[in-house]
Amino acid sequence: MSFKTVADFEAALADLPAPDEEAIAAARARQMQLAKPAGSLGRLEEIALFLAGWQRRERPALNNARAVVFAGNHGVAARGVSAFPADVTAQMVANFAAGGAAINALSAAAGLELQVVALDLEKPTADFTVSPAMSEAECLDAISAGAQTIEPGLDLFVPGEMGIGNTTAAAALCARAFGGDVADWVGPGTGVNVAGIARKVEVIETALACHADAPRTPFETLRRLGGREIAAIAGAVLQARRMRVPVVLDGFICCAALAPLKAAAPSITDHCLAGHCSAEPGHILLLEWLGLDPLLRMKMRLGEGSGAAVAVQILRSALAAHDGMMTFAEAGVARGK
Amino acid sequence: MSFKTVADFEAALADLPAPDEEAIAAARARQMQLAKPAGSLGRLEEIALFLAGWQRRERPALNNARAVVFAGNHGVAARGVSAFPADVTAQMVANFAAGGAAINALSAAAGLELQVVALDLEKPTADFTVSPAMSEAECLDAISAGAQTIEPGLDLFVPGEMGIGNTTAAAALCARAFGGDVADWVGPGTGVNVAGIARKVEVIETALACHADAPRTPFETLRRLGGREIAAIAGAVLQARRMRVPVVLDGFICCAALAPLKAAAPSITDHCLAGHCSAEPGHILLLEWLGLDPLLRMKMRLGEGSGAAVAVQILRSALAAHDGMMTFAEAGVARGK
Repeated sequence: MSFKTVADFEAALADLPAPDEEAIAAARARQMQLAKPAGSLGRLEEIALFLAGWQRRERPALNNARAVVFAGNHGVAARGVSAFPADVTAQMVANFAAGGAAINALSAAAGLELQVVALDLEKPTADFTVSPAMSEAECLDAISAGAQTIEPGLDLFVPGEMGIGNTTAAAALCARAFGGDVADWVGPGTGVNVAGIARKVEVIETALACHADAPRTPFETLRRLGGREIAAIAGAVLQARRMRVPVVLDGFICCAALAPLKAAAPSITDHCLAGHCSAEPGHILLLEWLGLDPLLRMKMRLGEGSGAAVAVQILRSALAAHDGMMTFAEAGVARGK
Repeated sequence: MSFKTVADFEAALADLPAPDEEAIAAARARQMQLAKPAGSLGRLEEIALFLAGWQRRERPALNNARAVVFAGNHGVAARGVSAFPADVTAQMVANFAAGGAAINALSAAAGLELQVVALDLEKPTADFTVSPAMSEAECLDAISAGAQTIEPGLDLFVPGEMGIGNTTAAAALCARAFGGDVADWVGPGTGVNVAGIARKVEVIETALACHADAPRTPFETLRRLGGREIAAIAGAVLQARRMRVPVVLDGFICCAALAPLKAAAPSITDHCLAGHCSAEPGHILLLEWLGLDPLLRMKMRLGEGSGAAVAVQILRSALAAHDGMMTFAEAGVARGK
């Protein structure tokens, strides 16, 4: 499934399916029978019901769960918005292939298959302070590349990203989608200092002014201020929704990919859990806008899907309890008052 | 190793070993070489260093990690402080043996071996509103039963508990160790209502008055207001410290076992991580007194070691990254500025 036209993308966003209420009710009934005080597993119970609803079965599973790291290069990186040179994007893609990155270790620990999709790394997006980051065709290609990673039978999808300069693109998307002071959306990213943060704010203000008169549709915002890996995440999360595949979101950039979509289609995050709240300061604000309560707060700020991969461990625990526990009747335990 | 006399217990508490600073330094140096922005794995890095220090090696592991659920019965349960009948303690021990409880599923998911130690279930402790819960010999036996579960070569210890009525004992221990209004330490436990909470407060106030003139030593507080499973946890955590085995603590009752020890030996929690903050309201306050920042906040309130077992998943992710990632040099990735 791909998005050949902007109209395809907009139509999908206007027709978001709901979870299966019968499966949720069946999972809830099961939880009430398990040998424990009602509700005593707290958020683990909520996770089990969430996964039941999207997987459309009383006993959801994570047998076929996948993390996909999308990588892209950004024209805006030339403006000194990152502590790392742009070459690092391709170097890290090689590291993913060699198995040496954080996401390799964390995916393996969480039982996630890992896929890496490098998007035209040799062709950075245009500098969005002076023109749209991507042409319509380029943005549709990136969205479709994301959508194509969602296969039938997938139990869970975890998007990740790599792209030197992409916290600047992410902050620009948030500022355009939700407003507020640009400075509220900007942080150190992988580690720029105070002067670097000021430069990021200035770059984003210039970009917002450049695109001020453009149509405020999700697609135009993504294409003007996003990047290939960001558009791919938007396409993948949208496609996951169409196929009712639940999603665990990672940090600031991953969540920012949904900012333009959220503004137009508030229920776009219904099939998503926020894996964690990162140390990037704008992420707290962004999660509030997305209406998501993060599972973890580990002060992580690496990207790659790393925080979400850790959170998948919590989902595994939630399903282990949901599926593996005996009921009061099976266990021969007296119920409480 | 057991605690034959009160003096043995007190001597151990007065001589707590420190972590291995060399191993911590080596682990920190390794983290600085791994191909990621420095510090970007946040709390995962802190966990790796913590485990390195107590396991005394640059690359700690969780090959031999164990959860132990201690079970005991409480004379005070006869005073209507629980939503469940006291018979449920033994029924749940049978459920642990049959593999049907939450801790069975959650231990298996986290790769923890599970052991269950039932402590004289047919002989509840005395009602501590009128006399000490245990004799000196009974309390020493329970402490030693806990200590004996810590074997050489253990990589991690996760204490859990089962005992109808034990949130009342836990709240009494906290109120005696740290003071404050009794009501601040009392919550619904497994699910009593407002009247039940008021009854718990009254019972604890009666108990505190009964023991007001007793010596305020860790041992006397444990023996007078604790229970067998609580004393066993105190003994196990103390023995873990002597053998430098790191510990992940569970919820309110598990942490309350350390309250009397903390008041006398503030560093007793140095080898402990708080697995989670439970929904039991006193746990927030207790974690502050213990100086522990919980890894998870999942609104769990089940006990058994369940929240700690979920948190062990986070430790596994932390060590997967610490051990499995390549360095900048190995991965051929340029360092940032």
